Amino acid sequence: MIPLRPAAADPTLVEDLRGAIREIRDFPIPGVGFKDITPVLASPALFGRALAALVERLRPTAPTHIAAIESRGFLVGAPVALALDAALAPIRKVGKLPFRTERIDYTLEYGAAALEVHADAWEPGARVLVIDDVLATGGTALAACALVERMGAEVAGCGFLLSLPFLGGEQRLGSHRVEALIRY
Amino acid sequence: MIPLRPAAADPTLVEDLRGAIREIRDFPIPGVGFKDITPVLASPALFGRALAALVERLRPTAPTHIAAIESRGFLVGAPVALALDAALAPIRKVGKLPFRTERIDYTLEYGAAALEVHADAWEPGARVLVIDDVLATGGTALAACALVERMGAEVAGCGFLLSLPFLGGEQRLGSHRVEALIRY
Repeated sequence: MIPLRPAAADPTLVEDLRGAIREIRDFPIPGVGFKDITPVLASPALFGRALAALVERLRPTAPTHIAAIESRGFLVGAPVALALDAALAPIRKVGKLPFRTERIDYTLEYGAAALEVHADAWEPGARVLVIDDVLATGGTALAACALVERMGAEVAGCGFLLSLPFLGGEQRLGSHRVEALIRY
Repeated sequence: MIPLRPAAADPTLVEDLRGAIREIRDFPIPGVGFKDITPVLASPALFGRALAALVERLRPTAPTHIAAIESRGFLVGAPVALALDAALAPIRKVGKLPFRTERIDYTLEYGAAALEVHADAWEPGARVLVIDDVLATGGTALAACALVERMGAEVAGCGFLLSLPFLGGEQRLGSHRVEALIRY
């Protein structure tokens, strides 16, 4: 885990992101404060600055592939893949991908879950960067990392717009490099 | 409906896309040949060329907002929004968006469906471009257009990587401008 640091070239980015992200109380279940990034998406200038900063943080991981986690991870993963000239592979819920898949089952705090990726998404030796919008408990990101490694590829790192460290995601991802623009 | 035309600046794009997109038989149900775009995503050069061409087709629609349809539409909609300097608004399945939403119910050939968008995604008078990866029967895209219009905004057009005209989507979208890079 790499300590988070502000984007050097854009000193007001973190402040501007914090001003845009809104907390929705009791979503999706009572007691949870959900960080809603849609106001960031609604500003192409701010969304673009956030992606530019995230890309610079992630560039040193030298990924060959971006694993974008369905669904909001697609919004971040696609521009990141294009910017880093890396192959883009969607990691999806079960039954959504049409070709032969590799599947991983895992548990979240509220039950069982599973993810799939196409079996030809990457080759052994590939450097795969796992991308999602928010790092919360880290269960899904960790499952994605395990899937990458089971297929013989290497986890280059994990990138997020924001991290909620009090939920334990960064600890749970252990030795994997984690980059996020802001943490709450 | 605007006739599809090849991207002038990239004469081999359509051929290269056709070479990359693979058909998966009997997915998601028997008898359906599913066009799998993941090999396009796996090539950042080809994915980038496709997006560049789509952006140039869509630029004349002068959108203020991009409505990206969950989930694969996110992969196309996010880069398009950034390239066109437009606000990005996810259109999602019911229960996924945390803020106050507008909802539309519609029917697909295999049953009922519904979509939601945040109530503050756009204002009356906005020009909204609806983006998805594939235009098939057009049911989902048409519902998205109806949702845009019900909220007082204008549909600037609809953009897709590929269209399957034999499924009737382009006809169903009627007077809406439709752009797609290739058609099968």
